[in-house]
Amino acid sequence: MKRSPGVTVPPRGPVRSLVRDLPQAVPFVAPEEIERLRGEAFELRLGANESAFGPSPKALAAAHQELQRTAWYGDPRSHELREVLATLTGWPQDNILVGSGIDDLLGLSVRCTIDPEDVAVASKGTYPTFAYHVTAYGGKLHTVPYNAQFKVDMDSLERAAFRYNARVVYIANPDNPTGTVHSAEAMTDLALRLPSHCTLLLDEAYGDFVQSGELERQTLSENVIRFRTFSKGHALAGLRIGYVLASGRYIEAFEKVRLHFGVNRIAQSAAVASLEDAKHLRAVVDAVAIERDLYSRMLRDLGWTPIPSSTNFISFDVGDASVAADLVGLLAERGVFVRRAGGPPLEGYVRITVGSAKQRRRLKEVLEDACFPGP
Amino acid sequence: MKRSPGVTVPPRGPVRSLVRDLPQAVPFVAPEEIERLRGEAFELRLGANESAFGPSPKALAAAHQELQRTAWYGDPRSHELREVLATLTGWPQDNILVGSGIDDLLGLSVRCTIDPEDVAVASKGTYPTFAYHVTAYGGKLHTVPYNAQFKVDMDSLERAAFRYNARVVYIANPDNPTGTVHSAEAMTDLALRLPSHCTLLLDEAYGDFVQSGELERQTLSENVIRFRTFSKGHALAGLRIGYVLASGRYIEAFEKVRLHFGVNRIAQSAAVASLEDAKHLRAVVDAVAIERDLYSRMLRDLGWTPIPSSTNFISFDVGDASVAADLVGLLAERGVFVRRAGGPPLEGYVRITVGSAKQRRRLKEVLEDACFPGP
Repeated sequence: MKRSPGVTVPPRGPVRSLVRDLPQAVPFVAPEEIERLRGEAFELRLGANESAFGPSPKALAAAHQELQRTAWYGDPRSHELREVLATLTGWPQDNILVGSGIDDLLGLSVRCTIDPEDVAVASKGTYPTFAYHVTAYGGKLHTVPYNAQFKVDMDSLERAAFRYNARVVYIANPDNPTGTVHSAEAMTDLALRLPSHCTLLLDEAYGDFVQSGELERQTLSENVIRFRTFSKGHALAGLRIGYVLASGRYIEAFEKVRLHFGVNRIAQSAAVASLEDAKHLRAVVDAVAIERDLYSRMLRDLGWTPIPSSTNFISFDVGDASVAADLVGLLAERGVFVRRAGGPPLEGYVRITVGSAKQRRRLKEVLEDACFPGP
Repeated sequence: MKRSPGVTVPPRGPVRSLVRDLPQAVPFVAPEEIERLRGEAFELRLGANESAFGPSPKALAAAHQELQRTAWYGDPRSHELREVLATLTGWPQDNILVGSGIDDLLGLSVRCTIDPEDVAVASKGTYPTFAYHVTAYGGKLHTVPYNAQFKVDMDSLERAAFRYNARVVYIANPDNPTGTVHSAEAMTDLALRLPSHCTLLLDEAYGDFVQSGELERQTLSENVIRFRTFSKGHALAGLRIGYVLASGRYIEAFEKVRLHFGVNRIAQSAAVASLEDAKHLRAVVDAVAIERDLYSRMLRDLGWTPIPSSTNFISFDVGDASVAADLVGLLAERGVFVRRAGGPPLEGYVRITVGSAKQRRRLKEVLEDACFPGP
């Protein structure tokens, strides 16, 4: 760096200015934090899209078993898990990398693709942790609106990618918090249309809930990183494990900077056992589909408009931002944790996890009490 | 960026050049990797300084109990654990941050302090994962030699920090792989002497094994980040959890970029229970001290020179790099996993974890067989 004579550059503090100048922003406030403020635990936890249907008993048994080896670090290559994933997905083992959940792997992907001032493109209103990582690595986020059906607008994303010379395009498919989904073909098509230096980050956190098996038809594209998790359908959010499917250029990059011993061994064992219990996952997905219809009907009966969802959650229109905030607050006072769907264009929406039938019945009582309180 | 007319800047590939141009270097090859190459599991795992004395039964019970809630994300603030840590350490809760082990927190610290081309200083031969993170974030590492007793040379580190305008000085205390230790006063003193923009990263992974309680006397210094783990004395390496003690400037920075939901809830519960079982930790530390003497004596009896250690491992001089490589190979062939102590100046050293008495007896047989094979 050249300095003009006579100009003194003030010494930097110990924290990098890139980090020091970031806003203090947390993507999500945890239910535990709200519980501490309330001084009471929630009765229904329907705000973080956690599974109400539990993990595979085989996954749980494997986790209990593996606790015998807490003293040992986990395998940094998650070899056994990658073997099973390769068989299940048909992807080569070398194109599979395991991390501590999708948030971890999203951060890693942004770190490997976004230089300071580089641009990322995403839908306005989508999963905020992606934006969090982009900002934290010094990137700039450009957003484009959803289409009229609250679906990710592929053409707008493509145009924005070219216009802003984007390094990264992020899509959650199905999307969070709208719950809408695109076909595998639409994704493959978009990947081909993007500039060759641009990476498509394809977050399939909720892909297990797409019953058609639709997403599995997606083929390997050089510039796509697909993200999967054991936190949703597999009900292992508390264990922290997920993976990416990606071409060699990304895997090589990840290997150079990732936390090699970061994935705990209990999660690795549980994930292997969970994959081997395909029946359990199928039962969960079917149960979610049935309950999703019933939760949606209940919301409509109460006068609200849900967005059709392909996931284990439903975002529904309650009118405007202030009604949405009120409803979330009224439910919290009554022991039910849900979240607002986010900022514009979903500021008037509340997002609720599809739980069990029992939770639905209790939720109905609470909703009726909150909205039509007795004398 | 200004471009001269007529000069075309070649378009960058999808991976940032900072990452693309890094070497493919992994700090440690895992025992599982060697087992896959051998086609057989190790009988003795004494290469990663994992505890042979097991976790607290209370920690294990808490982990089993918490597996009921695998579907729920862990508390991103690790509130309960930070409460217990605040009571135990006397540090305010706001100065404690929990992460997925020290490697995770070291990476976070480097990310918050090192701009590309910034300089970090450490002892030549010390824990390689620190260097890995510095390189991965584009920083430059300058190293200074240990002193004649293989102790970290505080004066040399201080001089290098000033000479190279270092942003970060890294010390493991006790050091890994030498096992030597400095007093809390020496650390406090160094922290005060460093430039005000320079951060002292004080890795106390093996601090639990310093029996005098010596390290607890260290006081809060504005420019120090102290790292602690549950992987060693607490025997929870497989669960991935550790924490930092740091002044507000660092905690604020970490909160802006860290993976908020990264710490699994099984680890959080086990860590709380483990801290509450101080008796178990004390018993482990005492057992390690007794066995450390016996392991050292065994190594001396075999003609080698161990470096006096304050940890749960011993590095010992076997002559030169080729003998060290041979010994590690001969032990691996016989089912014993140990590691070389590292590069120069320890290229002629082997590092071995202090295990149980039973493991010591078996190790002795294997060492005698490897070094003095029968006819």
